[in-house]
Amino acid sequence: MTQQTTEPRYDVIAIGNAIVDVMAPCSEELLEELGLAKGGMTLVDAARAEELYAAMGPAREISGGSAANTLAGLSALGAQCAFIGQVADDQLGAVFAHDIRAVGIDFDTPPRQDDPPTARCLIFVTPDAQRTMNTFLGASQFLPPSTLDAEAVGAAKILYLEGYLWDPEEPRAAMRRAIEAARAAGRKVAFTLSEVFVIDRHGDDFRALIDDGLIDILFANHLELAALTGKDTLDAGIAALQDKVPTLVVTRSAEGAVAVHDGQRAEVPAEPIDKVVDTTGAGDLFAAGFLYGYVREESLETCLRRGAIAACEIISHYGARTEADLSRLMDDKLG
Amino acid sequence: MTQQTTEPRYDVIAIGNAIVDVMAPCSEELLEELGLAKGGMTLVDAARAEELYAAMGPAREISGGSAANTLAGLSALGAQCAFIGQVADDQLGAVFAHDIRAVGIDFDTPPRQDDPPTARCLIFVTPDAQRTMNTFLGASQFLPPSTLDAEAVGAAKILYLEGYLWDPEEPRAAMRRAIEAARAAGRKVAFTLSEVFVIDRHGDDFRALIDDGLIDILFANHLELAALTGKDTLDAGIAALQDKVPTLVVTRSAEGAVAVHDGQRAEVPAEPIDKVVDTTGAGDLFAAGFLYGYVREESLETCLRRGAIAACEIISHYGARTEADLSRLMDDKLG
Repeated sequence: MTQQTTEPRYDVIAIGNAIVDVMAPCSEELLEELGLAKGGMTLVDAARAEELYAAMGPAREISGGSAANTLAGLSALGAQCAFIGQVADDQLGAVFAHDIRAVGIDFDTPPRQDDPPTARCLIFVTPDAQRTMNTFLGASQFLPPSTLDAEAVGAAKILYLEGYLWDPEEPRAAMRRAIEAARAAGRKVAFTLSEVFVIDRHGDDFRALIDDGLIDILFANHLELAALTGKDTLDAGIAALQDKVPTLVVTRSAEGAVAVHDGQRAEVPAEPIDKVVDTTGAGDLFAAGFLYGYVREESLETCLRRGAIAACEIISHYGARTEADLSRLMDDKLG
Repeated sequence: MTQQTTEPRYDVIAIGNAIVDVMAPCSEELLEELGLAKGGMTLVDAARAEELYAAMGPAREISGGSAANTLAGLSALGAQCAFIGQVADDQLGAVFAHDIRAVGIDFDTPPRQDDPPTARCLIFVTPDAQRTMNTFLGASQFLPPSTLDAEAVGAAKILYLEGYLWDPEEPRAAMRRAIEAARAAGRKVAFTLSEVFVIDRHGDDFRALIDDGLIDILFANHLELAALTGKDTLDAGIAALQDKVPTLVVTRSAEGAVAVHDGQRAEVPAEPIDKVVDTTGAGDLFAAGFLYGYVREESLETCLRRGAIAACEIISHYGARTEADLSRLMDDKLG
């Protein structure tokens, strides 16, 4: 492994989908009528996106994107961050760029001039606060590997990659190049598996990355852990990975989270919450809290607790971008 | 006055700005730094809109527009409504059109092909829940009088007009034509004064409309009443108008509202509320509640109470489009 040559300029640099979320409350009946699989994420084409939008109630637009949400949380906590992702040169692209820069994140990927438009995610939120996501990837899938700023990647303590974006070809190539750049500079690579369907399609790639020792920090929920390892139980899944991944973080929704770092294991319960409003972004913000502790070299348990606190904040309101003063919230809760 | 020839198809048809609100929390210090007059609405050009947006924190986009908000409230209560307003053929125009149609409002004004883009209102919300609005009128100001559907106007019990839109020339001409169409069909004309600066610019027009007996229902807040009548006190302002306007409704923020109808006067206090989050749309939703009672020929006091309940709902959350089941809320509160 190459030695780190310069002081890192960023705590975390991320590559992810540049998406604006279009969110509306929705009844269980409407979900069924539209044939949507509750709780999941489905990629949709432009025609299906139009069809779903037409069936959706009045909505609100809030910037989203899994890795971008994570960075927004990190930035709110005081971390220095940069984002790489592709928007189109249109109004939703301007909205995405504004919102990510407004929280102090460097975002220099130039907007793409041609069709398709900026990515959007149509999110139906049922009364039980579950979100059902339908993503039209639009411009996001055309992130060109050629524009990847390897210098910037090498200047961040952690490169954070979003599994969702492994699906389209160009961003996948960009992420492979970014992993090389990060490793060459002696930085850490963090990866979130994002969704079971991504593992169904690209599990072989992910297992190869892990076997090659290219992933330092892996985020998975319990379903993704099972899909990746083929193991039925949490402990068997963890056992299958813990010697290959230096830091493994598994979130378990209301059952809390567990992490294993260099053979040491820690667990935390979910934070208590009065009313869950919208679970969009829970995993993204968990990663934000965890990584914030990680770059500060805090204990594994503190990292997990930060993750749980950030996730708890995000599910208390609509949207996957943090609304509270996260730093203060954590100071209060961690004492 | 011409006799009504057909059964009305709509309860209310409105002409207003077709605007998407771009809302963000904001500190008192930032307001001052940006030179914004707290609590007011200012028209801004594209350059100033860009400048303010750049200074704004991460935002959310929610459809707005004063009269459109009123219709959304009316529609949520079960009234049949139609909206006339100009969007551009762009993403924010599609958002506006989606959101207004999604609540069951007829909206047939074709999008405008050329620049400028769809109107947006940059709303800075301070911790005291006050909103400071900066409107870039964009396409909204080019509503062509020629596209006005006089038949549709004549088919609504009430034509509702937004004072904000009196400022640009084309919509003003469209609204004058709509007043003629409504009067010719024997319908009622309702008008909201919107803002003191509108009265400063167009008070003579408004007073002439009133003197000519063309306004059946007038909505004003206490400041607008003073600006229009030149009278210092609420009672003097009301006295100056009550013989010229069959139904006069004056809202007084936390002090409630008063209405005078054919010499009869009624008053209601503001509805009790735990926490005011964002006052955007309070006046718009008051008008919605009041008009809903009016078209059902309820008592003046019930109309006012419906206004107060709708206003109370809207200030309990971000955005000027209703989120609760307004009908049920009113049934609960009105018993």
